[in-house]
Amino acid sequence: MKLLKNNLSEKKIISKYLKKLNFNKKGTYNFDNDGAYLELDNNYKLAITTDTISEDIDFFSNDDPKSIAQKITTVNLSDIFAMGANPHSYSLNLLLPRNINDKWLRVFSNQLKKIQYKYGFYLIGGDLSKSNKLIISSTFFGYIDNDFEVFQNKININDDILVTGNIGESKIGLDILKKKISINKNFKEYFIKKYLYPAPCKLGPLVVKQISSMKDISDGFLGDLKKMLNSKVGALINLKNIPLSSKAKKIINASNNLKIENLLNAGDDYGLIIISDPANRNKIFDIAIKKKIKISIVGKIIRKKGIHFDSFLNINNIKEFDHFS
Amino acid sequence: MKLLKNNLSEKKIISKYLKKLNFNKKGTYNFDNDGAYLELDNNYKLAITTDTISEDIDFFSNDDPKSIAQKITTVNLSDIFAMGANPHSYSLNLLLPRNINDKWLRVFSNQLKKIQYKYGFYLIGGDLSKSNKLIISSTFFGYIDNDFEVFQNKININDDILVTGNIGESKIGLDILKKKISINKNFKEYFIKKYLYPAPCKLGPLVVKQISSMKDISDGFLGDLKKMLNSKVGALINLKNIPLSSKAKKIINASNNLKIENLLNAGDDYGLIIISDPANRNKIFDIAIKKKIKISIVGKIIRKKGIHFDSFLNINNIKEFDHFS
Repeated sequence: MKLLKNNLSEKKIISKYLKKLNFNKKGTYNFDNDGAYLELDNNYKLAITTDTISEDIDFFSNDDPKSIAQKITTVNLSDIFAMGANPHSYSLNLLLPRNINDKWLRVFSNQLKKIQYKYGFYLIGGDLSKSNKLIISSTFFGYIDNDFEVFQNKININDDILVTGNIGESKIGLDILKKKISINKNFKEYFIKKYLYPAPCKLGPLVVKQISSMKDISDGFLGDLKKMLNSKVGALINLKNIPLSSKAKKIINASNNLKIENLLNAGDDYGLIIISDPANRNKIFDIAIKKKIKISIVGKIIRKKGIHFDSFLNINNIKEFDHFS
Repeated sequence: MKLLKNNLSEKKIISKYLKKLNFNKKGTYNFDNDGAYLELDNNYKLAITTDTISEDIDFFSNDDPKSIAQKITTVNLSDIFAMGANPHSYSLNLLLPRNINDKWLRVFSNQLKKIQYKYGFYLIGGDLSKSNKLIISSTFFGYIDNDFEVFQNKININDDILVTGNIGESKIGLDILKKKISINKNFKEYFIKKYLYPAPCKLGPLVVKQISSMKDISDGFLGDLKKMLNSKVGALINLKNIPLSSKAKKIINASNNLKIENLLNAGDDYGLIIISDPANRNKIFDIAIKKKIKISIVGKIIRKKGIHFDSFLNINNIKEFDHFS
């Protein structure tokens, strides 16, 4: 049995770092078996999503393992919430390079545990392999009432277009790390944190009855909105209503390199785009306010295809993010 | 949008090669959405397993994509069957290097489609990323009657130890490819095929009522049996009953490099180890014979811990396969 650095065998990694994430749940054998059984109450169906994050593409090799744990859970939880489901459990495929040591695994698994407690889900099993780069795939399971299902393209003319959270925060953090923008220390910390520790928006399952369609913003607001419109209807966007933090506004005003155009195309915000009948507007706002989730009406669905803006904007091309790029 | 070789964008790969694997199943949005809903009949619960295969570890970069498709499905189907479940669906995380082209994707996806038809399951969704090595993670879903569950360590003294298929075929194929064994052309083709195209054993879900425990052989017969015994009971193995193909027997007799010891520790056979009450022996054999599945009684569970043999065998150390090695 060959070992990784620091005598890390598969057995040791499982017993020392992964078993604790199982919360001793029945049907999972606490990792002694290869798989797991999952039984849902008859009133629910399962929502499933899967995502991979890779070194040099979605994070850097020297990033804090806390940030990497945050990212693999957020990309998936964001999908689960956008499907109107509540988190249930997940499986983890870890491809680990030789420089991964005990400390890395401890910090990584402790952050996973913290996030699991926060959103209420557990690890059902996983798989470990060696690799020359750190790559993490994860499949997440959520549950949703049998009677509901969230669509991404069920849209009516005149529907509201809503967005949760602020746009472009993560992108500004990445630009700062890439030294494309230089700003004062306070701002720097704020945005870098937004990039390293993105959070999913849990509004999704709370508004399934009120919405026409819903999607999380993983590929940029405009790119994801374009996918929802599906070349069938159009959108009129009120630029002044695009939610930006006061810090982001200040940077846009002061910087020559950053424009609102850049933020509208920026990925990894993980807010939700909600398309809904105006008749449900008050109810959605009530729920969001109660949960202290920022929500903004940014436009409405129109018959004219494409994305249109109420004021001049120099967007030549709406970037549809390709994870291959 | 940057493109891979041959203009392969994420969108093109999905529409050209992956959508057809979805069989237009409801709840999956045919890949237009990020996730999928999965609804089982109330009488069933879900069995879930996940596995990763990587270039240079589980296959070679120039292996036929048909073989790679066979391997990622077999490692997972084998777990699903060993859990007593029937295949339902799966998700796929593809990490693709730049040399992957249209031809590779066509052959790979056509083989997946063929296997899906054979065993009756569909692709619910997936995720594509670029990588410097070809790595495939997959999560498989099976269904099993609510009243049943298969354990790996529920074992009684005097239980039969059964094995399906032949032991060591895949290992001989690998040894031939590595030029550790040289044999005639006919034999060569037979064993290399066993290595490149391993098949799962579908007996599992048919015998759930008759067994004490069950596990698939992925880490070698002795390694997997050791895991099942779980340091609580022992096994007495009748060496002459270990199922070997007549071809394997001839090679062992002719070769100085290959002994039965090597085959007992060899992984990737994907037969099943079944531990069951002798009272159920006839019923299990009836089912296996009806399905034309080879099954052999290779020993029994004894009180004395460890794995013992009825004749002298030079096994110093039972290799517990570590996927990290």
